[in-house]
Parts: sequence; structure tokens; C-alpha cells
Amino acid sequence: MKFRTLCLVGACVPALAAAQSSVNLFGVVDIGLSRYSTQGGASVTKVISGGLQASRIGLRGTEDLGDGLRAGFWLEGDINADNGTGGTTNANNQATGTATAVPGGQGLTFGRRSTVSLAGNWGEVRLGRDYVPTFWNFAAFDPFMMFGVASASNLFFAGTSGPSISTVRNSNSIGYLYNSASPIGGNGWYGQVQYALGENSSNAANPDDGRYLGFRGGYSRAGWNVAVASSKTRMLANGDFRTSNAGVSWESRFATLMAQYTVSNSGIAGTKYQTYLLGATIPVGLGYIPVSLMKTERNNVAGASGRQFAVGYVHNLSKRTALYATYARMQNSNGAAFTVGGSAPVPGLPNATSSGVDFGVRHSF
Amino acid sequence: MKFRTLCLVGACVPALAAAQSSVNLFGVVDIGLSRYSTQGGASVTKVISGGLQASRIGLRGTEDLGDGLRAGFWLEGDINADNGTGGTTNANNQATGTATAVPGGQGLTFGRRSTVSLAGNWGEVRLGRDYVPTFWNFAAFDPFMMFGVASASNLFFAGTSGPSISTVRNSNSIGYLYNSASPIGGNGWYGQVQYALGENSSNAANPDDGRYLGFRGGYSRAGWNVAVASSKTRMLANGDFRTSNAGVSWESRFATLMAQYTVSNSGIAGTKYQTYLLGATIPVGLGYIPVSLMKTERNNVAGASGRQFAVGYVHNLSKRTALYATYARMQNSNGAAFTVGGSAPVPGLPNATSSGVDFGVRHSF
Amino acid sequence: MKFRTLCLVGACVPALAAAQSSVNLFGVVDIGLSRYSTQGGASVTKVISGGLQASRIGLRGTEDLGDGLRAGFWLEGDINADNGTGGTTNANNQATGTATAVPGGQGLTFGRRSTVSLAGNWGEVRLGRDYVPTFWNFAAFDPFMMFGVASASNLFFAGTSGPSISTVRNSNSIGYLYNSASPIGGNGWYGQVQYALGENSSNAANPDDGRYLGFRGGYSRAGWNVAVASSKTRMLANGDFRTSNAGVSWESRFATLMAQYTVSNSGIAGTKYQTYLLGATIPVGLGYIPVSLMKTERNNVAGASGRQFAVGYVHNLSKRTALYATYARMQNSNGAAFTVGGSAPVPGLPNATSSGVDFGVRHSF
Repeated sequence: MKFRTLCLVGACVPALAAAQSSVNLFGVVDIGLSRYSTQGGASVTKVISGGLQASRIGLRGTEDLGDGLRAGFWLEGDINADNGTGGTTNANNQATGTATAVPGGQGLTFGRRSTVSLAGNWGEVRLGRDYVPTFWNFAAFDPFMMFGVASASNLFFAGTSGPSISTVRNSNSIGYLYNSASPIGGNGWYGQVQYALGENSSNAANPDDGRYLGFRGGYSRAGWNVAVASSKTRMLANGDFRTSNAGVSWESRFATLMAQYTVSNSGIAGTKYQTYLLGATIPVGLGYIPVSLMKTERNNVAGASGRQFAVGYVHNLSKRTALYATYARMQNSNGAAFTVGGSAPVPGLPNATSSGVDFGVRHSF
Repeated sequence: MKFRTLCLVGACVPALAAAQSSVNLFGVVDIGLSRYSTQGGASVTKVISGGLQASRIGLRGTEDLGDGLRAGFWLEGDINADNGTGGTTNANNQATGTATAVPGGQGLTFGRRSTVSLAGNWGEVRLGRDYVPTFWNFAAFDPFMMFGVASASNLFFAGTSGPSISTVRNSNSIGYLYNSASPIGGNGWYGQVQYALGENSSNAANPDDGRYLGFRGGYSRAGWNVAVASSKTRMLANGDFRTSNAGVSWESRFATLMAQYTVSNSGIAGTKYQTYLLGATIPVGLGYIPVSLMKTERNNVAGASGRQFAVGYVHNLSKRTALYATYARMQNSNGAAFTVGGSAPVPGLPNATSSGVDFGVRHSF
Repeated sequence: MKFRTLCLVGACVPALAAAQSSVNLFGVVDIGLSRYSTQGGASVTKVISGGLQASRIGLRGTEDLGDGLRAGFWLEGDINADNGTGGTTNANNQATGTATAVPGGQGLTFGRRSTVSLAGNWGEVRLGRDYVPTFWNFAAFDPFMMFGVASASNLFFAGTSGPSISTVRNSNSIGYLYNSASPIGGNGWYGQVQYALGENSSNAANPDDGRYLGFRGGYSRAGWNVAVASSKTRMLANGDFRTSNAGVSWESRFATLMAQYTVSNSGIAGTKYQTYLLGATIPVGLGYIPVSLMKTERNNVAGASGRQFAVGYVHNLSKRTALYATYARMQNSNGAAFTVGGSAPVPGLPNATSSGVDFGVRHSF
């Protein structure tokens, strides 16, 4: 939904001035029915939010400043559309910067993105809360784009220091983006550098905690897309948190094939996770079939690993509205206890298999 | 306020395509001055929000998918417009799913309604947080529509397990509605069935708690409107919570007359509340006079009952803006301690009379 | 951004009816990089929100009711755009009416303003949460308009009972405004009277606590603007809180010069703060240079005082987008420990000098 700045009271006239601006009020409401279970453990049936895409609302706009310069803003927040609450954010990129949401009481924040930008042909400078560079590889090379029961986050994030601390977004960030219009994969070279602050006082115990530096570079052309990214977050108590990943995808007439490799230091000295993903998105009629195979290995327990298989179907009723069904199954060995379902609606058990299914409707506006 | 999806930057042109969509940003700001007192007890003077209609903001929209099929979303949240806070919601339809709002800190949630829908001539399937079927009878057959000092909730809800648990809305719901465009009373047959989940794990103490099933059916024609509704919520600790109600209204040239009967099991085994309501809405010039008489009887204390008389006047300055004044008086006997004012700004005392008055302005957009 | 009420689905036609309405969705995203330090104490580097103007979003609208009468509403809330959280409000104008925001969890409230109004040639009656009369003098006669490292609040508020209690805004208020379109300074006589309620029960320990009465009167013409204001808040535990201030400004071709005097009783009996401000706003090319000198004296410690010098530069890229830089330096004597930076990102130390700088971008929509 877009509308004009100049739609004034009593005079919704077409604008003649060149430097027009727009504000765009947008969002997604995605609600589904899910069932998750862990072999030998618990099971649960839920109405969920965000099985195909995170439910959200946002406001964004750009202003043409002339001479090729543009200003822009973006405010976007999570909604748990199954119950109406909002999602939290993190104020300092550290464990102390967030809190458990109060059940039924968490209000809307703009924790998905809250930025102001200046942009030109030379790229974009962006300030505020924004996605980290490594996240874009997680999402661009996962057929499920990090959403729902089959999200690659089941293995990318599980067991690490958690998604809220510099694995998806950073607050207090200063970023530079090149060809930022298409972070998932544009045409030609693209890239992002991000620096973020923990904002501790100089006399704090660990004044550098939460300080982040990351980058991403990629190239996209003729159906090919390849990108690498790497980052480091200061966490003196546990050792720094490092993530690096690389991905490649190739779009043909029959399918888009993709592969991704991620290695992350869990924030506890000597603990390393390596994750491999092979996936495909296969167009079928009005929809497509996403499918992925993943494997994570931990170096601190010999042979401990989780393996996920996932397949789904997305049926587009229109550009804005889709029905979807997704199945995911996770197997563990040598003591690993990963589960499907992202936020782990039922706990995993060592060496147990867990599985789940989502059925839902995604509507965007 | 409605605006077009196709109002693009620099080109607010009329749309030609048939399947157009809209997003509607709407709301109510209703603020008034109130005085409540309990005989022999306390009194208070307040600036209140929502004396005539709940203050709120919302976003809703529909999309024509062709072949008579429509998709839609609705996000709506409470505002306490006297101080700017939002209202809470309930995440699991149980006491554990909500929390006391932090004074001055409660942010905006979409707890009034948060749904995605698919609809056609066959009716509407709706997922998310929505009104329960029995609520529509509470509101449709109360001249004060459950708002302000005289709200029928003073007797419907008081002493039961509370309005936040399946008496007004449910989260995690799956509903089917027929002729849903007019839940208060359309033309012809209408109905609603709702199933909602408590979302407990299978190994929880009471895995079925919070599970809800309810329905409503009605018929409206030639000024007559009649409806019945019933529901059951699983609450193993206290016994299930059941509510059933029925109402009838008749609109004549001089007044709309209404009657309602509600019986609810309070969630404590053997405790039953029966409530009777007689009311009328009398058009006067640019406004109308709502008036109601109510009586509640508790079966667990012989003869304990509360009786409310309420009268008001609503003066419409326009379709969107109204001035209002409402007076309500509650009498108790045999130990009952009901009060006026919905959220009970001053506590009731056994057998005491309480009364209150609201004066305010309601502005909708 | 403004748009018409009559932009209906599929027909964004110009309106012909006289009594047209509008809803305006507006906001500011202002993010910058700041460094604050206290001599002999701590220092911190932060990405901040609101260095030039508070980041916010809001909705406002008016409705023409005919006969010169208008209805209006205004909902506006703070955003911490560096991390996406919202700001708190205060529900009862007392210390019990607010709470420390949960880090990363504070949702959006409409704590900046939440009002409904009726207005005509005779002025405006406004209900809800609104700015107090004395605040408008604070802001109108401060070249930094109470924002950022150099905000006059560094001395106006520090050491008093805090900005959330009736120094900036009141909830539960009933106000009358004359020439309210330009609270900073219109043309001719203007004024505001506000009464606000603490909303305590009659049997509370101090039932009058939080009750407020304040007024402001001014005259603006031919570049001159002069105003006085005064208020009293009931706080029986500590003695009532009183603030009075007066300001004058003169706009010439080369600069706008301003002076302000404020005296406030801190809420602790016998404690009085007097603050003097001299300031100027000097137009330079596309921007302007704000500069101010302030001094606060406390009567309870002989000679204890803070003195602030501040200077900045604001460069307008457009009407909506500006770059800014601000420097402020605070000196203390006789035990005073005031600091720059408004919310005191690093604590002050007795007799120590503190200083800070903000660099940022403000974008409004």
C-alpha cells in the first residue's frame, strides 16, 4: 500500500513537483495450524504466526533530495498474529539488552528494522537497527528463507548464543551497503559492511562487549548468485562470537538449486558448529515446492550432529495471498538434541527424532 | 479512512483493474470525565478512555482473489487514550497467558483482533485472535454495547473468571462465520463457530486447559433480531467454564427494545451466575437515549444478587463525533458486591449501592 | 504524509463535500553517533535516537463539524530509533504511574500525546495526555528545543523530581488552549490552562497526589515573542512541586535571540532551583547555528551551581531531512553534579566537567 505525501485535505491532486516522496504502510499477516513432536518426548498442536513469512507491520519511505541523493527511513516490527502481541528487540546487542516478553503483554516494537538512510549511486549509509551481513546468506540460500517449522535456523542458531545477539540483527549499527536494493541477490556486485556498538560505559566490566563488525560481498548474474559473509561480536565473558558463511544458487527453468556452508563459534571458547545445506525451489503451476537437506556438526562432542530434511508446498492465490504446507524432520546422533520449529515449541531430547508440520495462510499488504 | 493500493509515488491515478485492494487505517479516540463511588466506601474522579466506545487503532484490508473468493486481514488494538498506553492480550486463553500491565509501560498490542481470513459466498474462515461467539450476544443486546460505566459486563463478568479468558476474545482460534459482515445483526441467518487452542505441551499438568469450543446462531429480519450462543473452555483446575446466552431485539420507529439472558458457570464447580437484561435505545433528535435494567443471581449464596439501572444520552455532532453522558447505579443484596464501571475503579462492598457517571467525547476515524 | 478520508476502494476521487476530514500519519526518524564523558569519570560512545528531534510516529486528524466547530484527535509516541523500542508514559502523573522500561521489550505507547479535541474560534478544549503549559516555554526559548546533548533539560530537569512527572506532559488532563495552532509562538495573544487528575481513590493515603493545575500566557508579534507560565502539582509526601518560567525572543534578519528564566521547587520542601538561559539561533546558508548559555543555582547548598555552554550546526538537505552536529559542556561548582546529554548516559560527578557531542541525521515524514 502506497500513498502520496501530497494528498492534502480536500485536494488529492496529482503532484507536479519532481522531488516527490512517499510513505508506504506495509505488512504481513501469516497464521497457520502446526503440530510438533519429539520422539519419546512431548508433542503440541498450536496456531502459529509466521509459518511462511514473519507477520509484521511497517512504515517506510524515501525522499529525493536532488543530485542523485535520497533520504529514507524504515520502521518494521514483528507481530505474533495468533495472539496480537508484538516482538522484542535488543537494545545493546548483549544478553542484558533484551528480556523475556511478558505473556500477552509484549507491545509492538520496531525490532525488525528501525533505520534512517542516505543513499546515492555510491551506495547507502544506514543508521539504527538493521539486519547483519551474515543473516542475508542464511536467508538467501535457504529455500524456506528462515521461516517456519523447516527454517534453517533450527540448525544455524540452536546451541549457539541465540538469534537475538547479532545473528539476525544489530541495534546501534552504522552500515554501508552497495546495491542494497536486493540483499537476497541483485544484479552484479553487492555488499554490506556493518559496525555496531554495545554502548557500555568505559568503566563497565567488559566495555567492549556487544561491539560488532561484519561484512558481506556477493555477485549475481544470469541466474547465478554467490556470496560470502563474516562477522565477529565481542563477548569477553565467553570468548568472542564469530560466524562466517558462503552460499551459491543457480536458477534454471525447472528449479533454483542452492548450497550453503556456515561455521560459527558458539561464544564458548573452543565450541564450533559447522552447518551444510543443500536446497531447491521447484516451480509448480501457481506455486512452488521448497526442499532442503541440512547437517550440523559440533566439534566439542565427537560426532554429535543433527540432520534435517524438509519439504513444503506454497500455493499462490495471488501475489499477496498464499496457502502453504511444510514438513520437517530432524535426526540427532551422539548426544545432539536439535529440534524442528525454530523457537522449539517442544524440547528436543538427545539422539531423538523430532518432526513437525505447518499449514497456513500468508497475506501481505 | 480508506486509501488505494495503487496510489503510487507521483501517480495517484484511478485504478482500472477489477481486483482492487484496499487497506483501511481506522480508530477511535474516546475520552471522558467520570465519577464513581460506593456507598460507605471509596469514590474517585477520573479522566477515562472508552466511555462510549473503546479507544483503539487498527488496520484492515481485503483482497479480491477472483471467482468470488476474498482474502482479508484485521489488526486492531486497544488504546487507553487518557494516558497513551496500549492494552494487553492473552497468548494461551488461560490465566498464565497474560500479565498485569505495567503502569505507563504497556505498549500497543493487537489484542482486540488479529486475524487473516478467506471468504466467499459460503462464509468466512478466520484464523488468529478474534471475538468469541457468546460475546456478540453480550454486545448486540446491551444498549451500552458493553462500554462505559453502565456496561453489561458489570454483571456478566464480575465474579466469574474474568473477561480476559474466553469471555470476550480467544487467541489461537480457528473460526467459521456465516454472514459475518454484521455480527450484531445482519439480514437473515447468521452464525459463528469457533475452536481455540490452549497450546499446552502433551506432558503439561493439564494439557487441555484453555481449549475452547463455542457457537452462535441467529436470524435478523424486518426489525427483529434473535440469537443464541454457547461455549465451553477447558479449565481442569477449577472445572470447565461454560457460558450460554440468548437475546432478542425489535426495532420500531420509536425505540429498539431488547432482552437478554445469560447463564455462566464461573469456573468453580457448582457456581452459576444467571443474568437478565431488559433494555431500549430511544432515538431523540440527532442522538439517542440508551436505558437498561439488569439483574444477576448467584446460586452459591442463597438470594445473593446485583441489580443495575442505567440511562444515558448520546448526542451525535456528526457520524464520527459524539458527546455522551451515562449514569449507572448498582444495588446488591444477600452479600453480593457488584459495582458499576466495568473495571471497578472503586471496589464494591457487600450489600452496598455503587453509582457512577461518565461525560465524554467519542471521535472515530 | 496526508491522505483523504474519501479515497475509497477503486475511486480515489476529489471530494466535493464541504466538511472534509483528513488523517495524517507522520513521524521522525533521527539517529546519530554520540560521545559523552565526565572528567575523572566514565565515557561512552553510543548510537542515539533524537539528537535534533525526538524520533516518533503519530496519527492525527481533524473533522469539520460545521458552524466553525472542529473535532480532532492526536496520537503520538516516542521511538528509540537506534534499537526499535518505544517510550513509556505515565498513567497517573505520580511516581507509581510509570515503570522502568524493560530493555529491548518496551512497546510503542502514545505517551507523547493522546488527545481528543473540540475547537472553534473561541479556542480548543482538549482531553487526554498532553504537554503541560510550562513545557512550551522550556522548548520555545531553548535554541536546542529540549533535544540532544545540549538540551536545556540538562539543567531544567536534573535534580528535580524528574521529567516524567508533570514537567513535560500530563495524563488525565483537561485543557483549554487559545491560538493553540502555534504553542511555540503564534501571532497575537495565546494561552493554555491545564487541569490534570492523579486519579487516586478517596481513601488513598494522599488522595490529591498527582493533581495538577497550570497555565501559560503569551504574546507574539513583529518578531517578538514573550510568554509566562506557572504550575503546581500536588505531592503530599515531599511538598508540592511548583514550576514557573518566563521567556522572550526576538527574531531579526541575522539571528533570533532568546532568554528564559525558570524557577522550580524540587518537590522536597525548601529545595529551589533557578535556571537562566541566554540563546540564539543564527541562520547560515541552508542551515542555522544554535547556541546557548545556561546556569542553574540550588538554594539548598550554598553556591552549588551548574553552567552549560552549547553550540551546534544544523544543515538542511530539504525541509524534511537535516544533518546536525552539537557540542555541549557542563561545569559544576560547590558540589553540583549536573551532566550533558539529557538522560545522563554517563553519571556526573560533584564539581566535575562533563561534555558531549552528537552527529546525526533527522528525517521526518
